[in-house]
Amino acid sequence: MEVYLDNAATTKPNSEVVESMMTALTEYYGNPSSLHKKGVQVEKEIKRIRKSIGKAMKCSDQEVYFTASGTEANNLAIRGLVKANRRRGNHLITTTIEHKSVLNTFKDLAKDGYVVTYLNVDKQGFISLDELEKALTPDTILVSLIHINNEVGSMHPVKEIGKLIKAKNKNTLFHIDAVQSFGKEKINLNVDLIDSLSMSGHKIHGPKGIGALYVRKGVKIAPLFTGGSQEMGLRSGTENVPGIFGLGKAIELILDNQEDKIKRLIELKNYFIHSLSQQIDDVYITSKNGDDFAPHIINVSFKGIRSEIMLHSLEQDGIYVSSGSACSSKKRGASHVLVAMGMKEALIDSAIRISLSHINTIEEIDYAILHMAKHTKDLRKIIKR
Amino acid sequence: MEVYLDNAATTKPNSEVVESMMTALTEYYGNPSSLHKKGVQVEKEIKRIRKSIGKAMKCSDQEVYFTASGTEANNLAIRGLVKANRRRGNHLITTTIEHKSVLNTFKDLAKDGYVVTYLNVDKQGFISLDELEKALTPDTILVSLIHINNEVGSMHPVKEIGKLIKAKNKNTLFHIDAVQSFGKEKINLNVDLIDSLSMSGHKIHGPKGIGALYVRKGVKIAPLFTGGSQEMGLRSGTENVPGIFGLGKAIELILDNQEDKIKRLIELKNYFIHSLSQQIDDVYITSKNGDDFAPHIINVSFKGIRSEIMLHSLEQDGIYVSSGSACSSKKRGASHVLVAMGMKEALIDSAIRISLSHINTIEEIDYAILHMAKHTKDLRKIIKR
Repeated sequence: MEVYLDNAATTKPNSEVVESMMTALTEYYGNPSSLHKKGVQVEKEIKRIRKSIGKAMKCSDQEVYFTASGTEANNLAIRGLVKANRRRGNHLITTTIEHKSVLNTFKDLAKDGYVVTYLNVDKQGFISLDELEKALTPDTILVSLIHINNEVGSMHPVKEIGKLIKAKNKNTLFHIDAVQSFGKEKINLNVDLIDSLSMSGHKIHGPKGIGALYVRKGVKIAPLFTGGSQEMGLRSGTENVPGIFGLGKAIELILDNQEDKIKRLIELKNYFIHSLSQQIDDVYITSKNGDDFAPHIINVSFKGIRSEIMLHSLEQDGIYVSSGSACSSKKRGASHVLVAMGMKEALIDSAIRISLSHINTIEEIDYAILHMAKHTKDLRKIIKR
Repeated sequence: MEVYLDNAATTKPNSEVVESMMTALTEYYGNPSSLHKKGVQVEKEIKRIRKSIGKAMKCSDQEVYFTASGTEANNLAIRGLVKANRRRGNHLITTTIEHKSVLNTFKDLAKDGYVVTYLNVDKQGFISLDELEKALTPDTILVSLIHINNEVGSMHPVKEIGKLIKAKNKNTLFHIDAVQSFGKEKINLNVDLIDSLSMSGHKIHGPKGIGALYVRKGVKIAPLFTGGSQEMGLRSGTENVPGIFGLGKAIELILDNQEDKIKRLIELKNYFIHSLSQQIDDVYITSKNGDDFAPHIINVSFKGIRSEIMLHSLEQDGIYVSSGSACSSKKRGASHVLVAMGMKEALIDSAIRISLSHINTIEEIDYAILHMAKHTKDLRKIIKR
């Protein structure tokens, strides 16, 4: 049996996504910039897909830009907004539990002379809205916030935060890293006062190599790179047509009956957490149930068992989970997120991230729990000896 | 009959390329950064592909970086080399006939305070080596040169130019935009004294959305965007696995019997040029035969007939060609390349770019020539009336 429980790292492309990419590669191979039919038919399809994404996200198609990844979308938003709005000030705000594509980008901007405030989080992975309010100054150009943290699943109330930011300084821009939350949580761009939002194809059963950035109309943003002025001038380079086809299909599918999918995820997560605590001794479940947490991420520490040992033991049974974040290169060292949450070293060392998809089943969870329980027992025996 | 003669704009993905991408999407969907088998097997494949590209390019696999496009590769090279080596000086050299991804990037750098020399070209699209030598100063950080111009096919002697640059200032870096030349012309990275070289998948029957950059070992270069430190830290973001699979296969195929493919292209080009001049009156063929010109690009002006009229007339017959460069967005205005070559306005207005692939046939060329002759005759009659 194969049980893939690493869906926050990446997901298996849906067969309809694969099919649509095949169509792009074999039938729509023209260059969208070409003036002839072979180009025009591709341009039309891209326009159609951009429109349907805009409709799904309740924004204009003119506010949707395709990128090569969530990482590029985050970089484009942060670097692009800061560059285009640098006259407004030199202060930036983010948190200590951002994805590396945000965190390392702020580190770069700090080197360039910007002053960065990193908001701390509590033991569950949440920032304090009071601290955010205190941090905001008339010089604050941008606040960048991860919607659902990729390691523990803490989910920030973007609506409340958006209002708070704009009330304090209406010129401060608000960027949301929605790579983990897109499709898993409803986002209302207008109510939430979001200025930009990033997402990635391969987290929603779409292909790798494609992401998207929403940028509110009227917000000034500079490109990361220049050339033939594709993507309304913001992102040059011949369009990734198969990627765009795949992303369009993936978004269509993930938003189809979205509420049912989210409900299903919550059921699976609750069942998983219940089974873990019922069937395995000495587990510390960092990710909680409830509305404040993502429906698909469970961070759990099997006390006394190093995460890599557990990961590789489960792998032998065809069960795939993650230790810490798999979205960065294989660098050693403790998870910066768990450290920021003030977790004890022993718990960090044994932290496993289980991440679900709506296509996972109860049967798969039972199989995973069975083997987690077995390995916990066996490994603890070895350690005790 | 369908005759696709716009291969410098983009090419149809080879069926083996499409197949390898399918494999990536359905079997190798893991995240290369994941520690478990699903990730490790993908990481291994990427390593294998990077190695085979290195072998094909006669460089180390550690010198090959995947990007999302030729445009991103050019931007990464130019912006990245300049940023990492800015202490060496503030002078940059390029030409007036670069692709927009180079030209607009230099324009951006000029805004940032760098002094840019744009080398002029002669009527055939060649820079003067004397002028280049005179332009080089101890302050020159970078020379960026298009190997094969995408509109007219003029091909610069990179070996000679590399030697000239390094003799004058060994610290000056030399970047080659090889998006049009990769696979069409042999490039020896060591002899040619190239420091970086960009290429694109979709110009060689690979997929859109993937490109690559060669950077010589030891050369300092800064990333365009930051995150999980993929691509040896130079280009963060989850790898475009299907794109990399497709690019790897496309490079393997284009370099297999490369000499035969180039010979075939030259035969087709010579036949096309001969037929054009024999069978159609008043044509001005900008692209010449011979070793100084690309084997696949023919820029030709059908005197008195506006290029868009000819393009759309041919389209009715299933023949696809380009007017000017199709690699930038559909902006109006004369080709900057033909203007830089000092071509008369009337000839620019009627310029058509025909670009071949080794999969084109003599039969297709005969069909195209037949219709070009017919339209030339018919359209000139209408104009005369």
